[in-house]
Amino acid sequence: MQKVHEYLKKEYPRFLEELKEYVSLASISAQGDKKGIQKCAEWLLAHCRRIGLSATLYETAGNPVLVATTRGTKPPPLKAISPLSRRGRSRKNRPHYLVYGHYDVQPPEPLELWKTPPFTPTVRAGKLYARGASDNKGQHFAHLKAVEAYLKTGTPLPCDLTFVIEGEEEVGSKNLALFLRKNKKMLKADGVVISDTNMPSLTTPAITYALRGIAALEITLRGADRDLHSGSYGGSLENPAMALAHLLATLRDRKTGKVLVRGFYEGVSALAPRERMALRHGGEADPEKYRAFLKVPCLFGERGFNHIEHTTTRPTLEVNGLTSGYQGAGSKTIVPSSARAKITMRLVPNQNPRQVLAAVAAHLKKHCPKTVRMELAHGHGAEPYLFPPESGAARAVARAAKLVFERAPVLIREGGSIPVVTDFKKILGLDSVLIGLALPDDNAHSPNEKFELRNFKRGMALSAELWRELGNG
Amino acid sequence: MQKVHEYLKKEYPRFLEELKEYVSLASISAQGDKKGIQKCAEWLLAHCRRIGLSATLYETAGNPVLVATTRGTKPPPLKAISPLSRRGRSRKNRPHYLVYGHYDVQPPEPLELWKTPPFTPTVRAGKLYARGASDNKGQHFAHLKAVEAYLKTGTPLPCDLTFVIEGEEEVGSKNLALFLRKNKKMLKADGVVISDTNMPSLTTPAITYALRGIAALEITLRGADRDLHSGSYGGSLENPAMALAHLLATLRDRKTGKVLVRGFYEGVSALAPRERMALRHGGEADPEKYRAFLKVPCLFGERGFNHIEHTTTRPTLEVNGLTSGYQGAGSKTIVPSSARAKITMRLVPNQNPRQVLAAVAAHLKKHCPKTVRMELAHGHGAEPYLFPPESGAARAVARAAKLVFERAPVLIREGGSIPVVTDFKKILGLDSVLIGLALPDDNAHSPNEKFELRNFKRGMALSAELWRELGNG
Repeated sequence: MQKVHEYLKKEYPRFLEELKEYVSLASISAQGDKKGIQKCAEWLLAHCRRIGLSATLYETAGNPVLVATTRGTKPPPLKAISPLSRRGRSRKNRPHYLVYGHYDVQPPEPLELWKTPPFTPTVRAGKLYARGASDNKGQHFAHLKAVEAYLKTGTPLPCDLTFVIEGEEEVGSKNLALFLRKNKKMLKADGVVISDTNMPSLTTPAITYALRGIAALEITLRGADRDLHSGSYGGSLENPAMALAHLLATLRDRKTGKVLVRGFYEGVSALAPRERMALRHGGEADPEKYRAFLKVPCLFGERGFNHIEHTTTRPTLEVNGLTSGYQGAGSKTIVPSSARAKITMRLVPNQNPRQVLAAVAAHLKKHCPKTVRMELAHGHGAEPYLFPPESGAARAVARAAKLVFERAPVLIREGGSIPVVTDFKKILGLDSVLIGLALPDDNAHSPNEKFELRNFKRGMALSAELWRELGNG
Repeated sequence: MQKVHEYLKKEYPRFLEELKEYVSLASISAQGDKKGIQKCAEWLLAHCRRIGLSATLYETAGNPVLVATTRGTKPPPLKAISPLSRRGRSRKNRPHYLVYGHYDVQPPEPLELWKTPPFTPTVRAGKLYARGASDNKGQHFAHLKAVEAYLKTGTPLPCDLTFVIEGEEEVGSKNLALFLRKNKKMLKADGVVISDTNMPSLTTPAITYALRGIAALEITLRGADRDLHSGSYGGSLENPAMALAHLLATLRDRKTGKVLVRGFYEGVSALAPRERMALRHGGEADPEKYRAFLKVPCLFGERGFNHIEHTTTRPTLEVNGLTSGYQGAGSKTIVPSSARAKITMRLVPNQNPRQVLAAVAAHLKKHCPKTVRMELAHGHGAEPYLFPPESGAARAVARAAKLVFERAPVLIREGGSIPVVTDFKKILGLDSVLIGLALPDDNAHSPNEKFELRNFKRGMALSAELWRELGNG
């Protein structure tokens, strides 16, 4: 292990340059830029091969999936066989873990808020600024580098590892399930390791044991087939933007913050007091500090729950975007022909994306005025996930984290969704361990996304220890 | 007059080419494109000089105002002195009318809905398609061509005419009032003739005797200073797009269509039954035909009034545009940092833009949740206008229209606003006569704006007769 850690230290400057190259590639999945995606996937393929992995790009109906494995690569020399093998485990039966990540990134807009351009990686005060720096390129790159250190120093890996790095996470991992189904044999493993979550602070590692699910929906209300002069026609027909405001307003109680869709909270269970307490370790517990961090006049969420619960254990409904009529400078006196809202809901255990979407669609149909035509487009969905934190893999992660961070990881719930976690469980029967390297202020999905280089370094060290711990399983 | 009408007929093909050139100039005032405005203003200046007018561009704090007058141009030969002068009226005391128009146009967006590009004028089936074709370039160009016919045929004009063609009508004529104040002496006149309104159909000329006023407002709600990941933070802070929906929904009763702002309808008077009846001539009276023309599922307006009243005698509040968060393809799972609505209100007699804006601002402040910061930007305002249809000028217009259309014009109210009409009255003490050449389906402010070439021709003939009638005044 000494050699591995020394290699990681010595080669760090090169690793940073490589990561900068990786995040400079604009692999935005939401905007249909196939070229940017392809270029990034091919860069990753070449990189995995260069560090000694056996790597392939698998085509899907969407963006390609990168698979890179230590299996079938040159076996270590006999004298270096790990103690694990000596304990009688054959190479065939030794542990095999999948490492999941995604090379696609969120759209960088609004561009004018970036201090340095989103795809011109820049290091400032020990942080790497770029779209994708922490979500998710930097995080899975740390794992790749730890494996490189094993391979390049001839240190035998105590377990087999297969990286599955996809290109559609930010748009709901639509094609990964089919990929998993088609490649069950190749992906037979003991578990999945994922670094695509947050840790509460630089000094507090965390294992995420619950993820919220997601369901996306786009509402379009149509009135006349063209924008109309608001002086000549205004007042005699429905204004779709106003109708949309009325419709959206029916979705949420403006005082209690409760979603008013019938059945929305069905099956959602209250937390046990002990879990409620434990959750306080999962983020900034002080509401005033949290409010100051968000820079909002005050916090606002579902009545009866605190901000940590709002973002982890409670389901939510958020408008992600509004579009209607004239949006340029000055004014344009029209009645817009249409108005559109993008909506996503975050789901918690016992909620199901299809059922929630059906409930919301029924609500919208009931409340949409007859004065406009409504179109609903369902987007991606993912089920919520809860995994057993007492599993062997979780304990191995905890030990590795404690070694590197000198502190046992806290157990937290995550407000975001990683749809593929449910797919790994359902299709491959695998539990995932989520060990995050991102920080709450890393600006994932926002301008000025960053990755703490300290966490890049510790992520590599943690990863190196983790393979040893998992091998000892 | 024979010579004038013959000239108009003979030169028509050239006039059409000139008008096409004029509307090909993208003079969009709302988007701050000074170059496009300047180019158009200079084209108009050169054109006015070419047809024999004494023309000047007056700089303002905004876009230049074109003034082109028959005064000071070469007097007609003695033998051609009009009967008017013989009746003892000196050249100094003869009638002087202003002709108002605007060379600026509405933004052409959404571009994809235009059959031919907005600034590539195209004639199809007797209609000229281009942004600005009817609103307002085509209409005031007809008047210019009538004057050209007088000047080029040596026919003495029975009155003096001064064209005032501004470049900020579509953004509220902000700088015209100061221009009028500064140039009171030059603009001393007997009245104003304006063609910037509709006629109900190709066979029904109309004099517009009332205009709605306007008041514009932009609401911005701000939450966090950056878009936030809806998974990590959603649920714990206000969503500005949702807050905007709630806020807009408080402005209008979704069932009765009434604006719920306290004081909004103050002073607005009910129409006398006779005026209600007369109004039915002002547009498509059949609600089903009108609905089919708008292509909406059903009509919707303030309860207790019909669609003609909704668009002419009742005040309205319309959302002209909505902007928030992510609007591109696919989804972006964010809580937007801000949400914005553009709003304009149409005002009727006894409403005042400042008072209405204050009432709406007070309403918004009262209803805006404390969870967001609200910014209000007041846009342009104009007072409603009602003018005496029995004035001498109106009667002259009616006679001229009857000669050309073979039918007396109907009296109508217009839903739109021409802010400058109030300025002409307040600053110069002048009443305006509004004789529209546009049709309800001309798509003013919409894609595929057009101008009926039949109305271009009849507009020129009407204009030629009008100067004679006004001279006889």
